[in-house]
Amino acid sequence: MPRKVGGRPVLPIGLSERDADTVNRSSAGRIVKKFLNDRNAYVDEMLDGLCEAYADLYVRLGEDGRVIARRACPIRDKVGIATGGGSGHLPVFLGYVGRGLLDACAVGNIFAGPRAADCIAAMHAANGGAGVLQLYGNYGGDRMNFEMARESAEAEGIEVSTVRVCDDIASSPRGSRGLRRGVGGMVYAFKVAGAKAEQRASLADVTSIAERVAASCRTIGVGLTPCIVPEVGKATFEIEDDEIEFGMGIHGEPGIWRGHLKTADEIVTEMLDRLFADLDPMRGDRLSVLVNSLGATPLEELYIIYRKVAHVLREKGITAVMPLIGRFATSMEMAGASITILPLDSELEALLRAPSFTPFWSIQ
Amino acid sequence: MPRKVGGRPVLPIGLSERDADTVNRSSAGRIVKKFLNDRNAYVDEMLDGLCEAYADLYVRLGEDGRVIARRACPIRDKVGIATGGGSGHLPVFLGYVGRGLLDACAVGNIFAGPRAADCIAAMHAANGGAGVLQLYGNYGGDRMNFEMARESAEAEGIEVSTVRVCDDIASSPRGSRGLRRGVGGMVYAFKVAGAKAEQRASLADVTSIAERVAASCRTIGVGLTPCIVPEVGKATFEIEDDEIEFGMGIHGEPGIWRGHLKTADEIVTEMLDRLFADLDPMRGDRLSVLVNSLGATPLEELYIIYRKVAHVLREKGITAVMPLIGRFATSMEMAGASITILPLDSELEALLRAPSFTPFWSIQ
Repeated sequence: MPRKVGGRPVLPIGLSERDADTVNRSSAGRIVKKFLNDRNAYVDEMLDGLCEAYADLYVRLGEDGRVIARRACPIRDKVGIATGGGSGHLPVFLGYVGRGLLDACAVGNIFAGPRAADCIAAMHAANGGAGVLQLYGNYGGDRMNFEMARESAEAEGIEVSTVRVCDDIASSPRGSRGLRRGVGGMVYAFKVAGAKAEQRASLADVTSIAERVAASCRTIGVGLTPCIVPEVGKATFEIEDDEIEFGMGIHGEPGIWRGHLKTADEIVTEMLDRLFADLDPMRGDRLSVLVNSLGATPLEELYIIYRKVAHVLREKGITAVMPLIGRFATSMEMAGASITILPLDSELEALLRAPSFTPFWSIQ
Repeated sequence: MPRKVGGRPVLPIGLSERDADTVNRSSAGRIVKKFLNDRNAYVDEMLDGLCEAYADLYVRLGEDGRVIARRACPIRDKVGIATGGGSGHLPVFLGYVGRGLLDACAVGNIFAGPRAADCIAAMHAANGGAGVLQLYGNYGGDRMNFEMARESAEAEGIEVSTVRVCDDIASSPRGSRGLRRGVGGMVYAFKVAGAKAEQRASLADVTSIAERVAASCRTIGVGLTPCIVPEVGKATFEIEDDEIEFGMGIHGEPGIWRGHLKTADEIVTEMLDRLFADLDPMRGDRLSVLVNSLGATPLEELYIIYRKVAHVLREKGITAVMPLIGRFATSMEMAGASITILPLDSELEALLRAPSFTPFWSIQ
């Protein structure tokens, strides 16, 4: 007889119940409440689905199918842009592969960098003969593997440049900017460099503008709840029901302080104070602002956040240009948000507004 | 002295702690862990932020600012399309106001229908002299208020038609389709009717194609975790850590069964079996499929779901056209997903692919 819950019958599940139990239960005995078939095939099955959905746009390359490239690649005489990083951040990274953006992406496991062989395969896919820019976030593993890939590509005669995005101001002090992690600012670097490459600019020019964005964008994030890495099967961190982690990284890295929940306006005020202390824009400047959900935080709350951002910018006499509000760089189902700012000049603004297309982000 | 948590200092918060406590604590004493300033101003502050961000696209109308309309409205001799519904579902509803889509939207509180006066104001905003289509989801409150608005508009001499979307197959049996709730299928109805109106079709033709979509799209959803309505301050339902609710509605309405978590492939198989039992597509048909996250479920898992959808369609000899995969109709931070199918003919397919633009959804 089926059990009843809340007056509704609970169907007998039989074998399925045991199957799901095996599949969804982690070694620690916790149920991983996610849509999955095999906790260790999460990324590969995700890529299967992606390539089923967008077969006209993407090809899947690399020995184990862990590279996603534009079907149009390599594009002759266009600078190729290759990226890569851990999974679990969609649209980062592979969601920015597309027209006017990136050419290829090496895909790691959830929150784990891609293999060097896949970084090389991504560079090969991106290489149209005008050189390849490696453009990725500043994480140790990614850096090591992209450096190996660079050596290998250069040995083959491919011209290579490298720009690492280090925008998370909570991850290291201003004086050691090169140690900062890459987070939401990567989105701006991808967009601007991608638009420049689309114009058939030289490798030196594409690299130079990517460096300019990487040097001038700044991000800070706030975490409310953790997420669950399917392979691991437990929360990335623990946090009380009334606590937030201010300055948290995109993988749940510890932030600047942990404390009692504050109002949205108080949180945003501190986020902007810290961003402006680091960047120091002036009255009359033009800025693009990215208000990003880390996953579970709904769009509704991003607009409550943006409301305060707009007020503060207006008070400071700074013009907000083309705000980006949505899920641009996530941590699975983590609740939380980040704010990224990018000061603009006329060239950056035009490149930011240039048309681009991926199934994840379309600018007309 | 600041407390320490995990070796990091916890900043003294002083007054803020009490403020947030007042703001974020519900009457039941629970902390509502969200970015908010005032639980009862959630929707209004969200609209403030929205209109700050997209001042060039949207105007805010209605006595209490609860109507969002295209700045371009009213567009002379174009059929106007007005919608409305509860908040908490972004991009549904107001996110579909834009070029090639809808003209105006009446905005209710979280999960609560808009007021009749705002439905009327949305119709006025949409009215360019060629008639107004009311296009919304089949919920009692929305229906009542849009019916009052229709009477009022007709008394003023505005030509009005009405199409309600009733696509949630879990909410009522096939024989009483008119009692079903409107969920993800609304996205298809908005897109197709919006594209038809953009072509300057007559009210009769725009209405007819909206009716065709409303009659032929089908949706089913699965809930994994609840969400918290800020005004209420508690979860919309309770569910065990190893349970799912199959057929759950977009506000947490009870589904067909509640039971133990299954694998993604098992869940998708049952979803498609039930959709196809209701709709019965044939070998050779062309279908668009919308795989939708209810909020917290990450995009990665939507692709794991779509992987199975693509396999099943291929087995059945059905062609998947322009899959839509993302967050199209959400329930705040609820974890879960829905699948919507829409059978296509050449006209529907062309209208679905037609260019459109809102900050939430852009088709080039």
